[in-house]
Amino acid sequence: MTDPKTIADRYLAAWNEPDDHARRQQLGRDWSPEARYADPLMAGTGPDGIATMIEAARSQFPGHGFTLAGDPDGHGAFVRFSWTLAPQGGAPVGGGTDIVRLDDQGRIAEVIGFLDGAPGHA
Amino acid sequence: MTDPKTIADRYLAAWNEPDDHARRQQLGRDWSPEARYADPLMAGTGPDGIATMIEAARSQFPGHGFTLAGDPDGHGAFVRFSWTLAPQGGAPVGGGTDIVRLDDQGRIAEVIGFLDGAPGHA
Repeated sequence: MTDPKTIADRYLAAWNEPDDHARRQQLGRDWSPEARYADPLMAGTGPDGIATMIEAARSQFPGHGFTLAGDPDGHGAFVRFSWTLAPQGGAPVGGGTDIVRLDDQGRIAEVIGFLDGAPGHA
Repeated sequence: MTDPKTIADRYLAAWNEPDDHARRQQLGRDWSPEARYADPLMAGTGPDGIATMIEAARSQFPGHGFTLAGDPDGHGAFVRFSWTLAPQGGAPVGGGTDIVRLDDQGRIAEVIGFLDGAPGHA
C-alpha cells in the first residue's frame, strides 16, 4: 500500500464504501491511530472520528460516488491525487485534490484536502 | 501574513530573492525554527537549512524566476498555490503546486511541494 495509485484507490474506496462497519474496519487497518483529516468543509481525528465524518458527508450526497481524476503522484511519505464527486451516471458536482502523509508503516497519518474548480486549480 | 495570497507572494519572493543574506533574514522571520520542506527533488529543515537548499536550487537556474499561477487558496492552517519557473521574459520551464502549513504564529512550519505538468495536474 505504498504506491500513489494504490493509496488513492484505497482512500476513495473507503469514501465510496456503503457499509459503515466495513469502512470502520478499513480505516482501522489502513489509517494511523493518530490520523488527522482537514479540508475546507470538515475535519476529523482518528480512524473512528474520520469514519463518522465520512458517513456524515456521504449522507449529504446520496447516490453519489468519488472517482479518481488524473494520475496520483507522490514523493517520500507524501501522495497527491485529485477526484470528482458525481451522481451515478451523471456529471460531476464537485472535485478536489487531497494530499496524504503516510506514517512509517505506510498507513495514512494525515489528509489535507482542497476543493478544485477555482482558477488555477481546474 | 495569514491570507493565502500574502503567504504565497512572500514565499515566492524568498525564492526569487537574489541576495542570500536577505533571504536568510526573511526565512528567519517568516518561517518556524522547526520548518520542514520536501518536494520530489529536494528537502530541507529549519530556516537556515532551507535557505541553503533554495540557494542550491537557484544556482541551477540562473536568470530564472518563480511566478504565482492561479489563485492561492487555503483553510485553517493550510495554504495551496501553484507557480511556474521561467527565464526572464521567456516561457515556463517548469511548474508546481506547494502546500504550506502555518504554525500558530502564522509562520511557515511545513512545505510539501509537487511538480505539475503530469495529466490531471496541468
